[in-house]
Amino acid sequence: MVICFFGDSLTLGTGDAACLGWAGRVCVQALTRGRALTYYNLGVRRHSSADILARWREESGRRALPGAATRLVFSFGVADAVERDGRRNLPLAETVANADTLLGEALEAHEVLVVGPPPVASGELTARIREINRELGTVCARRGVGYFDMFGRLVSSGAYLADVAANDGIHPASAGYAEMAAHVADWPAWQEWVMV
Amino acid sequence: MVICFFGDSLTLGTGDAACLGWAGRVCVQALTRGRALTYYNLGVRRHSSADILARWREESGRRALPGAATRLVFSFGVADAVERDGRRNLPLAETVANADTLLGEALEAHEVLVVGPPPVASGELTARIREINRELGTVCARRGVGYFDMFGRLVSSGAYLADVAANDGIHPASAGYAEMAAHVADWPAWQEWVMV
Repeated sequence: MVICFFGDSLTLGTGDAACLGWAGRVCVQALTRGRALTYYNLGVRRHSSADILARWREESGRRALPGAATRLVFSFGVADAVERDGRRNLPLAETVANADTLLGEALEAHEVLVVGPPPVASGELTARIREINRELGTVCARRGVGYFDMFGRLVSSGAYLADVAANDGIHPASAGYAEMAAHVADWPAWQEWVMV
Repeated sequence: MVICFFGDSLTLGTGDAACLGWAGRVCVQALTRGRALTYYNLGVRRHSSADILARWREESGRRALPGAATRLVFSFGVADAVERDGRRNLPLAETVANADTLLGEALEAHEVLVVGPPPVASGELTARIREINRELGTVCARRGVGYFDMFGRLVSSGAYLADVAANDGIHPASAGYAEMAAHVADWPAWQEWVMV
C-alpha cells in the first residue's frame, strides 16, 4: 500500500525538527508494528486547496507501484485561510468547492481520508479555520469520506496551543505534531488502513 | 533555504521504519543544530535518472518559497541498474547522458549536490553500480558539482552490507540509513550548506 499525504506546511511538518510531522509519525507507528506501506509526504508550504487540486493527480500517479493500491490523505485549510498581501488567500466558498472537486476526482480511483486543519494562535484566523473545519466535515459526509475533526481535538488543548504560540503562531514543534499524530493514530478510519 | 532531495527508493528511505532515510537524518541533524531549512524528500520508488529528469523541475518549482533559495540534491543509479522483466532498466550510457542533462539544466538556477548510489547484496548488480558511480563522479567533476562517493564508503562496510542482506538485498533498514547519513553529514560540501 502506498499512502500519499497531500496538504500544506502542517502536513509537511514545518517546525518539527524531527522532519516527520503527524503524517510521518503515524506511518512510523504502522511500520514499527509490521505493516507494509510506502509513505510519501507531499505537503507543501503555503499550498492551498487550489494548489493541491492542481497537482495531486500527477504527483500521486508518479508514485504508484504495480500491484499496490495508492491511498490518499488530504489535509488543508490553514494556507487557504491566511492573509497574503492583506487579503485572505482563498474565500471559504472556494475552499469548499475545491474540496468537493478534489474528492469527486480522487474517489474515482482511490480510497481517501481527510484530516481537518488545526487551530492557530490568532483568534481571527482560528475563527476562519473553525468555519472551514465545519464545511469540510459537511463535504466529506456528503461524499462518504472519513473526516477527522482535528480542530475539535486541539482547540481546547492547552499544550498544543502553547506549543504553537511558542513557535511561529501557526505551526507547532515536535510535541504538537506528536499530539496530532496520537489523535490520528486513534482514529478508527486510519486504523482500518494500517492495522495488520 | 529549501532543499529538495530527488532520487529513487534509496533516497526516499524504503526499508527505514523511522521514515527518514539518510536525507531525513541529515536534515534532522541540521535543524536540531538550529539551521533554518525546509526538507522535501522527493525520492520515488523505482525512479530512474530518466524519471527524475522528467519531474525535477516541476516538483521543485512548486516547492519554491519567496525569498529562499531552492537547493537540489540528486541521488540515483540503483533503479537505473536493476533488471525489470529480464533486462537492465537503463543502459549505463543513458544514465550518464541523463545525469549530464539534468545537471546542465539544474545548474542554471540552483546549487546542486549529487550523492552516489550505494552497493547492494547482489555482486552482479553491485558491479553495475560501481560503473555508474565512477561515471557519475566524472560527469559531476566536469560540471563542477560536488559528488559524494557513497559506494566507496559502503562497499567495504560489513555492517552496511549485512543490514542490506538482512533486509531485501537492495535497501538497508534504519541502521544502514543512519550509516549513510553519518557519511553525508561529514561531507564538507554538505556541511557548507547547513552549518550555521
